[in-house]
Amino acid sequence: MNNFTFQSATRIVFGKDTECLAGTEVKRHADRILLHYGGGSIKKSGLYDRVIASLNESGIEFIELGGVQPNPRVSLVRKGIELCREHDIPFILAVGGGSVIDSAKAIAAGVPYSGDVWDFYSGEAKIEEALPVGVVLTLPAAGSEASSSSVLTNEDGWYKKGTGSDLIRPQFAIMNPELTYTLPSYQTACGAADIMAHIMERYFTNTADVDFTDRLCEATLKTIIENIPLAIRNPEDYAARSQIMWAGTIAHNGLLGTGREEDWASHAIEHELSALYDVAHGAGLAVIFPAWMSYVCQHNIPRFVQFAVRVWNVEQDFLNPERTARMGIEKTKEFFASIGLPVTLEQLGIKDDRLEEMADRCTNEGTLTRGSLVKLGKSDIIEIYKLSRE
Amino acid sequence: MNNFTFQSATRIVFGKDTECLAGTEVKRHADRILLHYGGGSIKKSGLYDRVIASLNESGIEFIELGGVQPNPRVSLVRKGIELCREHDIPFILAVGGGSVIDSAKAIAAGVPYSGDVWDFYSGEAKIEEALPVGVVLTLPAAGSEASSSSVLTNEDGWYKKGTGSDLIRPQFAIMNPELTYTLPSYQTACGAADIMAHIMERYFTNTADVDFTDRLCEATLKTIIENIPLAIRNPEDYAARSQIMWAGTIAHNGLLGTGREEDWASHAIEHELSALYDVAHGAGLAVIFPAWMSYVCQHNIPRFVQFAVRVWNVEQDFLNPERTARMGIEKTKEFFASIGLPVTLEQLGIKDDRLEEMADRCTNEGTLTRGSLVKLGKSDIIEIYKLSRE
Repeated sequence: MNNFTFQSATRIVFGKDTECLAGTEVKRHADRILLHYGGGSIKKSGLYDRVIASLNESGIEFIELGGVQPNPRVSLVRKGIELCREHDIPFILAVGGGSVIDSAKAIAAGVPYSGDVWDFYSGEAKIEEALPVGVVLTLPAAGSEASSSSVLTNEDGWYKKGTGSDLIRPQFAIMNPELTYTLPSYQTACGAADIMAHIMERYFTNTADVDFTDRLCEATLKTIIENIPLAIRNPEDYAARSQIMWAGTIAHNGLLGTGREEDWASHAIEHELSALYDVAHGAGLAVIFPAWMSYVCQHNIPRFVQFAVRVWNVEQDFLNPERTARMGIEKTKEFFASIGLPVTLEQLGIKDDRLEEMADRCTNEGTLTRGSLVKLGKSDIIEIYKLSRE
Repeated sequence: MNNFTFQSATRIVFGKDTECLAGTEVKRHADRILLHYGGGSIKKSGLYDRVIASLNESGIEFIELGGVQPNPRVSLVRKGIELCREHDIPFILAVGGGSVIDSAKAIAAGVPYSGDVWDFYSGEAKIEEALPVGVVLTLPAAGSEASSSSVLTNEDGWYKKGTGSDLIRPQFAIMNPELTYTLPSYQTACGAADIMAHIMERYFTNTADVDFTDRLCEATLKTIIENIPLAIRNPEDYAARSQIMWAGTIAHNGLLGTGREEDWASHAIEHELSALYDVAHGAGLAVIFPAWMSYVCQHNIPRFVQFAVRVWNVEQDFLNPERTARMGIEKTKEFFASIGLPVTLEQLGIKDDRLEEMADRCTNEGTLTRGSLVKLGKSDIIEIYKLSRE
């Protein structure tokens, strides 16, 4: 187990009707906010009206900025930064899923920064200050509601990059599982893949003596695996929706990675898919993660055996550990397919003519390696893309 | 699953040599502190010197108040409050285990309060303000390093009572597992019983649809059950000590109780033992908890079956669930005995001449009930004391 520091200070306000507390929660921080959201779904569902009513009741003034797209764009973030500066706004309320929250975090970091906000994503600058952000969550997936990270897409070259700082962890996250009833089953499934990937990026480590966080990871994975099929079968299953929503937050607030080296190669490999083909992040992960597992598995067979046995209840083949390990990978892929996700590039409609270009971009033109369970260079990443073809 | 709010903002600084960061961590909050600790063990071990060196290096002035006893007393707390007021001290650093931390929290709440600090424990007043507290932890047990609670003993009548508020959650907790190498095995075992009890008080609930927190509870219990025997066999097993220490914090920072009704009858029943006989809290819990389980088990057999199967790997008797449930309870008791803890009042040297008096005190002269899995009145509590006799 490695030394670590960990602080996840986001106040979680969880349960039915909690969006009506938005005004009260904001009021602890500010009287004037930027209200940030995505497309029309929060207006169609009535959530927008309920949040506005709650803000009005608490006497909160707001400027609106909607229009966040999936794989949120830096251009809209720049617009948000301008708006906040112009109206001297000290707080941002994000109403939506991971894209809206990540966009809000980017605006929050950009407002007090004199350079261009993309600097935080390209690695040219570190976040030293940020406006506080609050969240009303509508989609359990990215875990951004209590995480220190934000991922953004730059239309100039279609780069998708992440940044992180405890300064952009939301102050509060309002989480009402009922708000997820209207999610189409494909989006529910994409969310599951994203949540599971956040756990697996931490689970597959070479760090020794991490029993406790191993078990927390397994507990969280099993919760998702058991509840997602229930939520897909009955979208208004409160029990299932609430387990998924809370597990999705814990999957990515940092707890499950305490004391462990994390991997994150699969995320980097997937980001190139999302960036070039604008596929849903979760769908891309469902394709890439099993391929990554197959490629690296032999470097740490015992860990993949533990994953197979404890997470998937695979009957262990004591004489052939690799067989057990590979059965766990197969189960993962089968699960993704069973909830309606693509598991091959072909199913995503992606041809293999840009695999090398993606591997190049992923390794910043071949100079960087990715991952920590196994260090991967450009040729490894090409192999993983190839394994994910069909 | 119930609605909940949850915020555990304590900054965890975990790992080898982290006590040398005490000065740096304090410096974020104050330049002048009360340094609060227990008996001579931190001086004997050299920890005291290392903390002082770190404080000096960061230019932190300090007033000292040592002498906290196990089952910490309100008289010393009152002295601490006077000291802080006299020297206008804005921050308290607790170096020790749960008793020292609970004493520090009481001082922190008492300083800005015009009445007597015991009011918070008797239920006559609510904490509205408190000085910030920091912790260097030496004993994984009470979980007080990141919890919102504090338990104090009033020598006037020997009452032991608890209070709670997010305002007394420590700002930071420095946790170096190496500091626990010198703990006698009995204290290690008492700590285990305390940690397990914190989880089980939350686990045994009637709240439906709490799969996720169930699994987190099971993960944390299994971590303790697997690692405690290793730490007792080899006190300098860093891997085991670190798993125990981190699991002990998560057991009681509130996460495992999110969305669930909690019980806490066993703690209330045990507090009377500690108050009247000054027994170690963990030892008292090892005696009381299995007796409580036996008494209430038939009210929620499926939950006790899940506990037996998932936590203790009991082979399920599908035709006789109660038999499986009772095997889980037996395993719990056997485990406590196997790590050297008493499991009967007799082994604690406690006669049965004051059982009724304790039941009376526990229910505030018979007017209150305890517990939520099953509401327990005075006569129930007498039965539980009787079940724990031998």
